[in-house]
Amino acid sequence: MSKASRKAVILLSGGLDSATVAAIARDDGFELYALTVAYGQRHQLELDAAARVAETMGIARHVVQPVDLRAIGGSALTADIDVPKSANVASISEGIPITYVPARNTIFLSLALAFAEAIDSTDIFIGVNAVDYSGYPDCRPAFISAFERLANLATKAGAEGNSFTIHSPLIERSKSEIIQIGLRLGVDYGLTHSCYDPTPERLACGRCDSCLLRKKGFADAGVVDPVGYVT
Amino acid sequence: MSKASRKAVILLSGGLDSATVAAIARDDGFELYALTVAYGQRHQLELDAAARVAETMGIARHVVQPVDLRAIGGSALTADIDVPKSANVASISEGIPITYVPARNTIFLSLALAFAEAIDSTDIFIGVNAVDYSGYPDCRPAFISAFERLANLATKAGAEGNSFTIHSPLIERSKSEIIQIGLRLGVDYGLTHSCYDPTPERLACGRCDSCLLRKKGFADAGVVDPVGYVT
Repeated sequence: MSKASRKAVILLSGGLDSATVAAIARDDGFELYALTVAYGQRHQLELDAAARVAETMGIARHVVQPVDLRAIGGSALTADIDVPKSANVASISEGIPITYVPARNTIFLSLALAFAEAIDSTDIFIGVNAVDYSGYPDCRPAFISAFERLANLATKAGAEGNSFTIHSPLIERSKSEIIQIGLRLGVDYGLTHSCYDPTPERLACGRCDSCLLRKKGFADAGVVDPVGYVT
Repeated sequence: MSKASRKAVILLSGGLDSATVAAIARDDGFELYALTVAYGQRHQLELDAAARVAETMGIARHVVQPVDLRAIGGSALTADIDVPKSANVASISEGIPITYVPARNTIFLSLALAFAEAIDSTDIFIGVNAVDYSGYPDCRPAFISAFERLANLATKAGAEGNSFTIHSPLIERSKSEIIQIGLRLGVDYGLTHSCYDPTPERLACGRCDSCLLRKKGFADAGVVDPVGYVT
């Protein structure tokens, strides 16, 4: 099979990392199939951003899969718990943050695996990062390897001798490196959305962990962040 | 922690196997939390059966999680493909049936893992069976072990040193053994639903793989199946 005809499933959140991953997969010659999981986020902004990114990336098909994790709870992102705010990256609490969503990446990868198998693809891209988000257990290389092993046991495709690859090209990259890669590949970061707690006017709060890491990434890369912040 | 206070998540489909698994978990002294995934099945019957079973089992909480796999497709159970029918068990096609749903048990276990973590449980029960359903890759012991390993890497609970157990007590049992275990534990199989293609009058078709295996199980166990069949 020629490289150009290979299909890949991209987990597309609408954030900076997954937009970069989509650009990497496209640059690798894959035909892109995007999966956005609408998991009971507090706001529509991430989904809008995912749709905008999908549109500009020439994606063959974009599936938005609702999975309302609020029924399960256990996270500041899916239950009624305040998102923590800090003045800068150094003040972000150590350990696993309360924005951790139980088993999120396992759920996302499972759905991506189903999508991949349904379209005869064995390549899945996910924008996890073990550097800036070291607090999340399901962003570590060992987790990705374990899922890859599982995927081959879990599926008809795997049982028939095909081998799934879970691509996580950003896993060892810093935020500023990610931004530099994306800019080189033409990503428009003005379309992306990272904030956990945006204002009603759709401005990023600038003080949640996700905003702080993003702002520091742009500062380190020496590039202006096209997204608007309150602070 | 005393055995009686331990919580377990049960994947409850409304079928014969998962009802039996719930009874086993209850008999083991677990407090039961049931998760039913409404994955775009063709009919409401399985969900009704799950609700009935949950009610009679004294379940602490029953979460019904909709995940519409029709958006993804790839199976006779989620797309518009006819369910195959046969005269008897011996005529069931070899290999992986078209009723296989891509990555289904991976998705189910991922959601169960999220639910377990949110309620501080490390025990998940699933009614997979490698004997009668040998065609499904995600019913094999190797798959269950791989998921258990993944669960410990994927979660905050795992990163903090807790260890998840994926209980699959039926995995090596024949259907007639499962029925005998369930009857001993007081399961009312009249509440359960197995058919892939029931009539509008809610009768089981009697000829899909699931009906054939169920009927053979009751016959082998020498017990009358309380469920009504067309044929």
